[in-house]
Amino acid sequence: MPVGTQGSVKSLSPEDLEDAGVRIILANTYHLYLRPGHEVIGRLGGLHRFMNWSRPILTDSGGFQVYSLAGLRRISKEGVTFQSHLDGSKHFIGPEEAIEIQESLGADIIMTLDECAPYPSDYDYVLNSVKLTTLWARRCVEKKRNKAQTLFGIIQGGMYSDLREMSARDLTKMDFDGYAIGGLSVGEDRETRDRVIKETRDFLPEDKPVYLMGVGAPEDLVEAVMLGVDMFDCVMPTRNARNGTLFAFTGRMNIKNVQYVDDERPVEKGCLCYTCRHFSRAYLRHLFMARELLAYRLNTIHNIYYYMHLMEEMRCAIEEDRFDSYRRHFYKLQGKS
Amino acid sequence: MPVGTQGSVKSLSPEDLEDAGVRIILANTYHLYLRPGHEVIGRLGGLHRFMNWSRPILTDSGGFQVYSLAGLRRISKEGVTFQSHLDGSKHFIGPEEAIEIQESLGADIIMTLDECAPYPSDYDYVLNSVKLTTLWARRCVEKKRNKAQTLFGIIQGGMYSDLREMSARDLTKMDFDGYAIGGLSVGEDRETRDRVIKETRDFLPEDKPVYLMGVGAPEDLVEAVMLGVDMFDCVMPTRNARNGTLFAFTGRMNIKNVQYVDDERPVEKGCLCYTCRHFSRAYLRHLFMARELLAYRLNTIHNIYYYMHLMEEMRCAIEEDRFDSYRRHFYKLQGKS
Repeated sequence: MPVGTQGSVKSLSPEDLEDAGVRIILANTYHLYLRPGHEVIGRLGGLHRFMNWSRPILTDSGGFQVYSLAGLRRISKEGVTFQSHLDGSKHFIGPEEAIEIQESLGADIIMTLDECAPYPSDYDYVLNSVKLTTLWARRCVEKKRNKAQTLFGIIQGGMYSDLREMSARDLTKMDFDGYAIGGLSVGEDRETRDRVIKETRDFLPEDKPVYLMGVGAPEDLVEAVMLGVDMFDCVMPTRNARNGTLFAFTGRMNIKNVQYVDDERPVEKGCLCYTCRHFSRAYLRHLFMARELLAYRLNTIHNIYYYMHLMEEMRCAIEEDRFDSYRRHFYKLQGKS
Repeated sequence: MPVGTQGSVKSLSPEDLEDAGVRIILANTYHLYLRPGHEVIGRLGGLHRFMNWSRPILTDSGGFQVYSLAGLRRISKEGVTFQSHLDGSKHFIGPEEAIEIQESLGADIIMTLDECAPYPSDYDYVLNSVKLTTLWARRCVEKKRNKAQTLFGIIQGGMYSDLREMSARDLTKMDFDGYAIGGLSVGEDRETRDRVIKETRDFLPEDKPVYLMGVGAPEDLVEAVMLGVDMFDCVMPTRNARNGTLFAFTGRMNIKNVQYVDDERPVEKGCLCYTCRHFSRAYLRHLFMARELLAYRLNTIHNIYYYMHLMEEMRCAIEEDRFDSYRRHFYKLQGKS
């Protein structure tokens, strides 16, 4: 799902998202807690109304952003004390606060507060982090009041197979509506990541959605879907768009390249996104070189549409029991067969 | 008309402009000549196709931007030699080149190359500038080939009544499709500007459109329409939008102000623009404070709609022969009666 860090998916309106086929967006609790504040959003009727977005929203627990504030945060059994990256003010978020904030924001799917261990971390650190994550998950379940919201638990355990198993067993006992695999995409190699996804997936119930957090590139999605993952979130389509990298089924392109200066073709032949239906590579290159704001929007629309299209194709292939052949086709189109 | 400096009206798509009621946009010859180059745009089928904009386009002659390059340009009888603000490369644009470039771009309305005298300038300087403007206008008329494009002449003459008269008499002899009043909005006071508009207007034919270049604020438009002006171009609605200043019939507002933090109302009650129909002041303030790209687009949509609405109201008032009363109403709403 596209990520809306601060109450919008960067450069897009709700209609842009709907037109690109987006069914759910992610909003970052940490950012919205600090600005404009979850109480403000709560008073204004919640995030859906604030953003004018009527489809589902998922909010993260704020944990991941807080851990990224290295040097500015301290973790205890109670929760996390941290300083705002905006003004240095001091704040505390524990599992109860994470739920309270997410209830004010009013997303459809909310997440437990977890501790994402740095990579690499030694066994004892990760063991402790798994225990803390379980403890906090239980406190989140106990705190949660709003039955209209579904709560996902987050599995941790670093790259240690037995700790992933421990975390998955602890959390599945609490019978969450869905399960997220956290603590990946933190610097580990591809092989390790795939192993951990597979091992973690094996301990999760078949009938609940599995959400791989913070992943990833198109090929990462294809591999993870093969391993049984259902949901993803990532800044990759939007951030790349703003850097001029456009995704296509035949590979990526850097729209800055001089070869596109008078290229009349759309980004990808046959693509039905708004951008490809209306504008040439030459125009997109020109807007980008001239740093026109429209460049970021048109690029983002294309990349989001590409991701939605890829996920839709994978859903179809799974339903029609031909995922392996779709996967081969996917790599073949990119010249990687 | 909204200004599309580099091939887009900053932050807006063609649909955004159409939805806001925009019927014509201005594109800057100087910027497009340098990047991506008028030949590139010509090869790609012209500016309409390049931008995917099917309604009318007006291009300026490039003169005004070139004159703004103080220190980087030299004016002779032949034309202007200047250095690119992008890479310092040397270029020459004379009246023939101005027409050639504008024919490649393919706008519906094109402009003669003129010399806009700095303000203040002494009589002799402005006299010479009027003569040069007349000479260049004649060469533009002689060079022009494409009958599908209409050509407007630009009146100069600084703040000198007799030189405005001279320039207007010179140009009207050439029977242009429309006339622009150039050389204003360059630092003169309101009273002087109104006098020059009035004096220049008196020498122009009743049945040709009169276009006041580079003006202005809403009250400037109301005053100039009263003096007989039909067309305007200005960066004010778009640039102000990007700085957080929003126009409303009851006055301007700075969306950054803390008073809007939980203000659920639209920018202006009753405004039918996309922004006002979907988003609160609180959300717009939040997006702006968080520097979200969507802020610039939503603010720009509102300001452009406001300007289009104001012009439409004035057209109606003129047709119904009640412009004076409309003008009083306009100031009264702003608390200036």
